Formats: sequence, C-alpha cells, structure tokens
Amino acid sequence: MDGIIQASLRGIDSHGIRLFPHYIQGFNKGRLNKNPKYHFKKTTSGTGIFDANHAPGHAAGIEAMSKAIELAENNGIAAISVCNSSHFGAAAYYGFKAAEKDMIGLSFTQATAHVLSYNGIQPFFGNNPICMVAPAEKEGPFCLDMATTITTFNKVEIYKESGKNLPNGWAVDNSGNETIDPKNVFSLLPIGGYKGFGLSMMVDILCALLSGSKYGPDTSPMFNNDMKEKRYLGHYFIAINIAAFVKPARFKKRMQEMIDRLRSEPKNDKNGHPVIVPGDPEKNYLEERIKFGIPVSKPFVNVLNQLFADYDLEDRI
Amino acid sequence: MDGIIQASLRGIDSHGIRLFPHYIQGFNKGRLNKNPKYHFKKTTSGTGIFDANHAPGHAAGIEAMSKAIELAENNGIAAISVCNSSHFGAAAYYGFKAAEKDMIGLSFTQATAHVLSYNGIQPFFGNNPICMVAPAEKEGPFCLDMATTITTFNKVEIYKESGKNLPNGWAVDNSGNETIDPKNVFSLLPIGGYKGFGLSMMVDILCALLSGSKYGPDTSPMFNNDMKEKRYLGHYFIAINIAAFVKPARFKKRMQEMIDRLRSEPKNDKNGHPVIVPGDPEKNYLEERIKFGIPVSKPFVNVLNQLFADYDLEDRI
Repeated sequence: MDGIIQASLRGIDSHGIRLFPHYIQGFNKGRLNKNPKYHFKKTTSGTGIFDANHAPGHAAGIEAMSKAIELAENNGIAAISVCNSSHFGAAAYYGFKAAEKDMIGLSFTQATAHVLSYNGIQPFFGNNPICMVAPAEKEGPFCLDMATTITTFNKVEIYKESGKNLPNGWAVDNSGNETIDPKNVFSLLPIGGYKGFGLSMMVDILCALLSGSKYGPDTSPMFNNDMKEKRYLGHYFIAINIAAFVKPARFKKRMQEMIDRLRSEPKNDKNGHPVIVPGDPEKNYLEERIKFGIPVSKPFVNVLNQLFADYDLEDRI
Repeated sequence: MDGIIQASLRGIDSHGIRLFPHYIQGFNKGRLNKNPKYHFKKTTSGTGIFDANHAPGHAAGIEAMSKAIELAENNGIAAISVCNSSHFGAAAYYGFKAAEKDMIGLSFTQATAHVLSYNGIQPFFGNNPICMVAPAEKEGPFCLDMATTITTFNKVEIYKESGKNLPNGWAVDNSGNETIDPKNVFSLLPIGGYKGFGLSMMVDILCALLSGSKYGPDTSPMFNNDMKEKRYLGHYFIAINIAAFVKPARFKKRMQEMIDRLRSEPKNDKNGHPVIVPGDPEKNYLEERIKFGIPVSKPFVNVLNQLFADYDLEDRI
C-alpha cells in the first residue's frame, strides 16, 4: 500500500493508485494471496532466499529488502533472491528503504516480455527495471529507476488514443521493423540496441535464474489473462552498507555536492531546460503532491468509490 | 598482461595490445607504479577496501576481484572498492574470473568524462562501463560489457580518418547540439537520453563516492596529459556466489538454455543476422584468434619490435 501511494506521490502514475483495481481483482480472482505465508531462508551470512507465496509484490519485496538491509548491517553487502512473487510496482520503493539506513539499495524485477531481441522480430525479455537509490545530505536520495526501452506501452497507448504518430526509434511491428503507427506496435526498442537488450537479460539472470523462476517469454504477463493465473515472478535485492566503505556522512556530503554541481552545469539554451539528476522530476512531483494531493480523473474517482462501497469502507473521495 | 591479451583475443582491440606502448609510457613517465604496494583492508565479512597504489588497473583489479571471490565463498555476495588505480582495460576480464568459480561477477570503473549531461552542453560523467559475467553449461560465460553511450571516441576517430559523416544520434558539438561532422564532436550521446546518463552516474557513485576518489569531470583523463599525472581511479567489484541461491549446475544449465533459445529466435529477414546474445561477437573472435592469432598492422609490429629492443627482450614478431 505504501509503495503504491509513494509511486503516485512521486508522479509515477503508471505504477501508482491507478493499479488499485488491478490488484483487488488479483485478490478476488486468485492471482494474489490474501494470507501469504512467506518463507525466508538465510543461506549465508550475506544472502537469503525468500518465497513470497504469491503475496502482492510490494509487500513481499519490502520484506525481502528489509532482510537484505538487516544482513548488510554486519556483512557490508547482502542480497536476497525472491521467488513466487507478483508485480512489485515501482522499483524505487525498495531502494528508498535502504537509503533510509545509510545504504545503497539496488532492486530488480522481471516483467512482461516487451523488448525486441537484438536482430529479432519479437520480444523475449521484459522491460526489466534497473534501480539504484543512494542517500544525499540535504534532500531525498539519488534515484535512478529505469526500464530498458526508449518508451513504454503506456506511452504508446496515449499516442494511440490521440491518433498521433509515434516518434522514430520507439517501437517495431510484428515483423521486427520500425513503425510509427501506434496501432501496429508489437515490441519496444531497447535503449542503445544490444545494450538495452543486454541489460534486460542481465536483470532476468539475476531475478529468474538465481531464484529458479521462469524467464523471458515464459514469464506470466501482467495483463492479457484472466487474473486467476499466479505470476511466479522473481526479484533481486541488494543492500550495500556505505559504512563498510566510507563514512556515511562523507558519502552523503559528496553525493549532495555531485547533485548540486550537476544542476549548475551549463544548460543547452536551444532546449532551455536545466541539467537534471535522475529522480529530479519525481522530487518535484513529490513536493507538489504532498501539498496538493494526487490528481485523479472523474472516472477513476467513480472506480474508487465503487471499490470503497464494495468493501464497505467509510472513506470516500 | 593477461587482461590485455584477453581483450585482444576477444576482439576488443581498443582495450587490447594496442595499448602496450601507452602503459609502458605510463611506467616511464610516472603515472604507473612499477613496484606497487597494495593495501587491502577487510572491513566486514563481505566487503573490503583496496588501495592500488597506482599499479596498472589490470593487476590491481584482478587482485581486488580475487578478494571479492574469496569473501563471497562464505558470504554469498561480496564487494571490494578500489582507489588509487588506473585504466583497467576491458571490464569483462574481472567478471570472467568470478565465473570460473561459479560466481556472477560485476565490475565497474570510472572513465574519462565524455558523456553529454542531460539537457547540458558538456560532459560530466565518463563513459563508465557496466559489466556482468555469468557462467553457462557448455560454452564460455554470458558477458555483458557495455559503456553508456551509443558510440565511442574510437569509432568517431575512424569516421574522421575516412572523411565520412557520422550516423545521426551519436554525438554533439561544444554547444550540446547534435553533429554528424566527426571533426566537431565534443561529447558523446548516452543511450536512452537520461537513462545512459543515469547509468554513468550510478557507476560513478559506486566507483568514486564509495572509494573516496574524485568524480565526474575531476577524474583525471586517460589521454590529454603528459602521462606523469597519476589517475587516482576508483573501481567497484561484486562477486555473487551462485551456490548461495541455487545449485550452480542448475543455474548453468538454465543459462545455457536461455542462450540457446535466444539464438534460435526468429530473425529479422530484412537485416539477415541471427539473434545474438551479448558477448557472442567476442566468442567468435576468441575462437578465431586462438587459432590464427591477433591481427596487427605493419606499423604496430614496428612499434612492438622497437619496444622489445628498448627492453632487450628476445621475442620478436
């Protein structure tokens, strides 16, 4: 729940409260387990395996990252492999947990196969996110949370609805050839050709092969099924205890200095925007939405009110 | 030495024997230390800090990765932060060392600032590589070893020499605007806009901030100076012991299956090449060059023979 709301507050609407009805459906149809029994096994002083028992990925993920943080207290670095999980929302959520404890948090997950394979005509790997969060001295942490494609299917949908053509370089049709027609999109193009494709594979190795989960196109998709099917997703979490390498106060001071210097770099006048640090747009959203709330559309308010009624909850919005 | 030759055998000519004269100059002019005294301090059961004392990065790096492997034996995962190092060549070399021991190896290093900052007009971060190596059952390991830009300055040089224009999307001039004239290239464009830029920053956080090294544009450049200046580079190595998560034999079998499936994915007939896995081109080079040797130009043979003469070595090529 925290993770879903945090995503919306940070402006990551695709991974925020918009998905409440989706998760509720998951509980009702059987994909998600309302009463999961986690099974955690510490395998060495710095590692463990975590069976999420089909809990919502957010709940299981934050528990697994907490274990990583706990082990990294004494071991400097720790990693937890998660199996039998489901969609965990925005990867940043887990990294922030580590940053609170003066650690660097890395989080990875499998996702629905969408990324065009290098030289291929169809997707094999998912748009698997890579996320690192590191604390700074005077503001929220540095946060890089990125998928491995130029764009997302969400954005393609927006173009489809508006009847506009896509920019070049975003997507391909079912023959693997580039298309600017959003109705013909079959797979998404990875960043940097083989590089983005390779990053997706790297994440699937960590998330699927280390956890014994299905991989690539065998990964159960987030949508496109009846929500009964469990997803058996794998995640991978790493916590790096900064104190094992350098004094955390010094690290955070230098992290802040790096951020400040970047923002004061000369900007490209043609484009007019200042140089920004990964995570800056989300910091702006967070500041605004904590004050003014999360904007929701009228139809979505109705969806939420219906959900509240269904579950006999007092709150209305 | 091993690392340099391995790079050439794998077809990574930019990081191979071509650089022998560069490193020799480093020894002679003072950048590199012929008799380094490493200082290693184990800081927790899974981490350590390694002062390279200005040794060649290859020598210090492989020593540091060996420490990570040693600690990961019992801790499942381990990380070593390196300071006071220099150019370490191809990042893959260190990952292969981990894969030999049924571990996943990750290696990162700082590099000369070349990557255009997001919305900026000049580079701040280096083209910092991200590398992961993981063992497979029946062939050499999976190896992703990538920099964060679309192209490299080496390739720009080749276009400059041939008088050809660059493809779109590779590079910018000193106002931060895209250029196809190789003579005007000032910075390189990152893969996926803010994503490649963010990956460069992520690597600099691991390599510079955790090791207390200089970062971004303060990093001493590889070329452009008199070779007297020491580089004080930082690296970061992680070893993940597969056995802490899943049986290594099972992991390697599934890694092989993933590779085999990818290679048999339907190819794009328009382009004609089969789907390949990151590291495949290097595997082909390795097979060929182990049989037939490393091709060298006539002028480079003269350079090498001169070096052999200078150092009174028997071998000639």
